[in-house]
Amino acid sequence: MSVSLRVHLLPALTSPEELTGRVVVVIDVLRATTTITTALAHGAVQVIPCLEVDEAQLAAQRQQGDVLLGGERLGVKIAGFDLGNSPDEYTRSRVAGKTIVFTTTNGTRAMLFCRGAQRVLLGAFVNFSAVCHELSRVAAESPETGIDLLCAGTRGEITREDVLLAGAIVDELSRQFPIPLEVNDQADLAGDAWRSAVERIRGGRPLAEILQRSCGGRNVLQLGQERDIEIAAAVDTVDVIPLLDPAGWTIRADTS
Amino acid sequence: MSVSLRVHLLPALTSPEELTGRVVVVIDVLRATTTITTALAHGAVQVIPCLEVDEAQLAAQRQQGDVLLGGERLGVKIAGFDLGNSPDEYTRSRVAGKTIVFTTTNGTRAMLFCRGAQRVLLGAFVNFSAVCHELSRVAAESPETGIDLLCAGTRGEITREDVLLAGAIVDELSRQFPIPLEVNDQADLAGDAWRSAVERIRGGRPLAEILQRSCGGRNVLQLGQERDIEIAAAVDTVDVIPLLDPAGWTIRADTS
Repeated sequence: MSVSLRVHLLPALTSPEELTGRVVVVIDVLRATTTITTALAHGAVQVIPCLEVDEAQLAAQRQQGDVLLGGERLGVKIAGFDLGNSPDEYTRSRVAGKTIVFTTTNGTRAMLFCRGAQRVLLGAFVNFSAVCHELSRVAAESPETGIDLLCAGTRGEITREDVLLAGAIVDELSRQFPIPLEVNDQADLAGDAWRSAVERIRGGRPLAEILQRSCGGRNVLQLGQERDIEIAAAVDTVDVIPLLDPAGWTIRADTS
Repeated sequence: MSVSLRVHLLPALTSPEELTGRVVVVIDVLRATTTITTALAHGAVQVIPCLEVDEAQLAAQRQQGDVLLGGERLGVKIAGFDLGNSPDEYTRSRVAGKTIVFTTTNGTRAMLFCRGAQRVLLGAFVNFSAVCHELSRVAAESPETGIDLLCAGTRGEITREDVLLAGAIVDELSRQFPIPLEVNDQADLAGDAWRSAVERIRGGRPLAEILQRSCGGRNVLQLGQERDIEIAAAVDTVDVIPLLDPAGWTIRADTS
């Protein structure tokens, strides 16, 4: 008996069919999954992910109650939107009690791959332990289900910050799981990357500095948003697991 | 001034256009690039890579002089062929002075991506230092060219044995190069994987044992060809660099 745990370094390396019936963690550390997790932790009622700007505007019009439009194109807040893609902007005073219609390219595209999944979680360093805990619970209850960690990447490129989180989860689950894991080579590679980062962290280098060096990190630095990387690198600052409901296409905090 | 060094964990993660004008190392450790390097080291005049079995048979008929048909499907020697895909079979007494028409799926597919490249080398652990030395020479002579390490993978899956060799080359070049390298995130990930392997090797675990665990390694073990992994894991046993000439579509030993 073993639990299947696969990592996909990019959505293009898997398919919606492969993810059907499985538990999937979508990872877009810089910044979509960090920002959505922060928004829900700060009291947002739900987040509705959209691929296109006009689709987001339409979805916002259709929503009842207090709605905010959030998201980015090329890293920058979209004209006419209330919020960008900085977790920093999603404060309690801004988002509590509200619905956020949210559009980013990489994170949302990855979520679209999960339409047939059994359960879809959003993972970030900020909710790392909550996600690992939930995966352990799933694996103990139904070890036959299988777990996939899906890295969003950036514009079709593998980005190391997503792979590092996937590796951290693989590493943690290998320790926690009472039954052996059956992993793919990409999970091994992610684990290697994370252990290499851990050594640097032990040597005194903060995780935020390691994330700055990655493809996504360099992009965020270029936007002048260094603070976002610090927020994204703060492990376990929130205890919320965003759950994507593929049927209603909404993301809400797991309250189970 | 810096030298661009990129790793592609699979051909699908790049394109022939992206490789145009660059120096590319094709990597298929288990087993195509190990076997072709061995064949040339043992005196084969040239290797002609083919994607399909019938294409290989046609190419063999057209060749003048002594010709052998080599290659595999699903790891096994093709019916009617002279040789399979085990480096072990390509002994001096079998291949010296001969042309090998060779068909494997993953390695050949990767080579097809290099049709616009300036120079195409085949890399394996068996010729590791020769390849690194040649890349250093290229980078010193024309640092503007750019280097790509292209992992073949197995049936569209990333395989760790190829990534490990790419990482070993990245690691070696980072030390050797007089000018800084500009790497992509996949190169960083490959370097992480290699350094993780190096730690295990220092702890007394042979490289062959590490390769056995990878996706390609498990496939070769299933075929009962454990010895092929040992040959593939023997670093620097030969001093030959196979060069693919994209115009004539032949692979010959570099004699420059």
